[in-house]
Amino acid sequence: MVEIVVSFHSGSGHTRRLAEVFAGELEALGAAVHLADVTSLGDADWLAMRRADGIVFAAPTYMGSISSPFKAFMDASSDIWGSEDGWSGKMAAGMTVGSYASGDKMTSLIQLAVFAAQHGMIWVGVDDIGAPVNPEKEGINEDGYCLGMGATSVRDKAQMIRAGDVTTARRFARRFHAACARWARGG
Amino acid sequence: MVEIVVSFHSGSGHTRRLAEVFAGELEALGAAVHLADVTSLGDADWLAMRRADGIVFAAPTYMGSISSPFKAFMDASSDIWGSEDGWSGKMAAGMTVGSYASGDKMTSLIQLAVFAAQHGMIWVGVDDIGAPVNPEKEGINEDGYCLGMGATSVRDKAQMIRAGDVTTARRFARRFHAACARWARGG
Amino acid sequence: MVEIVVSFHSGSGHTRRLAEVFAGELEALGAAVHLADVTSLGDADWLAMRRADGIVFAAPTYMGSISSPFKAFMDASSDIWGSEDGWSGKMAAGMTVGSYASGDKMTSLIQLAVFAAQHGMIWVGVDDIGAPVNPEKEGINEDGYCLGMGATSVRDKAQMIRAGDVTTARRFARRFHAACARWARGG
Amino acid sequence: MVEIVVSFHSGSGHTRRLAEVFAGELEALGAAVHLADVTSLGDADWLAMRRADGIVFAAPTYMGSISSPFKAFMDASSDIWGSEDGWSGKMAAGMTVGSYASGDKMTSLIQLAVFAAQHGMIWVGVDDIGAPVNPEKEGINEDGYCLGMGATSVRDKAQMIRAGDVTTARRFARRFHAACARWARGG
Repeated sequence: MVEIVVSFHSGSGHTRRLAEVFAGELEALGAAVHLADVTSLGDADWLAMRRADGIVFAAPTYMGSISSPFKAFMDASSDIWGSEDGWSGKMAAGMTVGSYASGDKMTSLIQLAVFAAQHGMIWVGVDDIGAPVNPEKEGINEDGYCLGMGATSVRDKAQMIRAGDVTTARRFARRFHAACARWARGG
Repeated sequence: MVEIVVSFHSGSGHTRRLAEVFAGELEALGAAVHLADVTSLGDADWLAMRRADGIVFAAPTYMGSISSPFKAFMDASSDIWGSEDGWSGKMAAGMTVGSYASGDKMTSLIQLAVFAAQHGMIWVGVDDIGAPVNPEKEGINEDGYCLGMGATSVRDKAQMIRAGDVTTARRFARRFHAACARWARGG
Repeated sequence: MVEIVVSFHSGSGHTRRLAEVFAGELEALGAAVHLADVTSLGDADWLAMRRADGIVFAAPTYMGSISSPFKAFMDASSDIWGSEDGWSGKMAAGMTVGSYASGDKMTSLIQLAVFAAQHGMIWVGVDDIGAPVNPEKEGINEDGYCLGMGATSVRDKAQMIRAGDVTTARRFARRFHAACARWARGG
Repeated sequence: MVEIVVSFHSGSGHTRRLAEVFAGELEALGAAVHLADVTSLGDADWLAMRRADGIVFAAPTYMGSISSPFKAFMDASSDIWGSEDGWSGKMAAGMTVGSYASGDKMTSLIQLAVFAAQHGMIWVGVDDIGAPVNPEKEGINEDGYCLGMGATSVRDKAQMIRAGDVTTARRFARRFHAACARWARGG
């Protein structure tokens, strides 16, 4: 059974919603999923990350990069960097949420990919050519992110992110699960 | 009178349209504008760039970064890099066009900003908080780019880019013109 | 008289040293300089930033991007983003320190440049072609950064950063001061 | 047997040397290696890329990003993007050479990682904590790159890149080979 940690920070609930959608799809696929809110990490969370086949990093984009509470988690991970408890050789993926379709969320995804590379992780992107090129894929990766997932917040508190983002997150979860499973089988 | 070069590469006409809108607004403001297609540069173009107060770089995003013909121009500029003919101390700005609202156009803008910094240029971004935060600014910087302008191509060959992109380009041209004029006055 | 704020976070003193060298050179040039440790900002600091002609952002690179305490300051600045107290039209520059010559400090400089662009600031890079290309410039911008300054920490607690980094910081301060002065004169 | 393509552009021989060192190590490990100079690609090269388990992208950094001849290859790959001949699910890695230790090579590695993500590839970084932190690893990943390999050119035409870069490239080749083999086994 594949073990995956979905680590996240959420300021107003949008990223939590995205993380939960992603985690829910992973569970439906049979993975052992651990949702970890980085603002209240305990030993069990760090242990889950140590055991995991893959870790997903999810946080809002504030002022053009990953939110400060999530960055505090990234900085704290330097304690295990390069150690036996480190994440070298694990699968990694990134997701971010902003109030705009575009722009600076890409900088956040780069930041997460570089962070994962520092830990020696293997990076899995979205690989879902979206709506403008494939009109039948309505709302799926509509903005055309590839390095990771970029979602856009909506004001409707029941929805939190666009319907297309929910679908994209589920498809991304399937891709990430398949990559983790394949990587585990080959190990 | 402020002198500005708008250098561009355009594969299918979208970036040409964006460059022309930008250049047209500069002319309306009284600037001496030189449009330079980087696929056919001559001595007059390089001379115009040498004389200019500011240079704008505009190119499509292909496969996640600036198009290869524009990159060939960037590489060719290494001949004047750090020389008396170089661009140190000039104002610079960047624009790119893609078929998606988002994502990898940001990488292109970063690429252009780093390129300008290599030449010792001063970078002027968009500074136009867009529609999702200010609903009355319909279509203006709708996707929320700030480092430079990110436009989205449309299939209508008469329009080439979204109407909001045209408005955004004009506003960006006014900002860039004002910055070049202020910089020239202070020099 | 040009007013400049040097905002910084320093975990172990290296970035503080860099910020102080930069600020010291600015003072020698006659600028009104305000050093602001972002972990203890008060009203006077925010007021100084509001009044300043230019703001310098300096922080260590931890795990491939700007340190979390500095990111907390960046996030807090969203309160003045786009407001009358905002930083639109001010000059900006960035500096970072890491334990390696290279690599992920570039990501931090990109992060700072994007942040400054979100605030509508004008970005001033290093413009100092360094030692490998100009051997007579021993130690100056030795690693070849251009978007901002990248310094490398040393273990000697009296020195904190390489001697060449100190020289580079002073030269960068002169460039930034000249840019702020020119911008102010033209305004 | 693992099949790997090392695609490269080399302006003055430095990147060719890096690519050959990398390819030589792969061959010593038993991989079927195909070296592809992107300035003279034929059907056999594209077929090798189509068949490969992994593709390595190697090019010099010119003016802050990947050289224009290599970008022409990246642009040309849009013909197979998202098609049955595409590279989705293959392993990818990146290498670049510059005349400075640092700085803008990071932008090139980001550019390559984003490009690979567009193709749906899985990205493998360097994962080799280098000399400043581990003094016994003399010359190995001395500058501290993680997203990919950053080498520095030297003037000695017999050597082309630093001795430590040669060692780092061999270690990176072993890591990439192991990742491709594991991925193939799990598939």
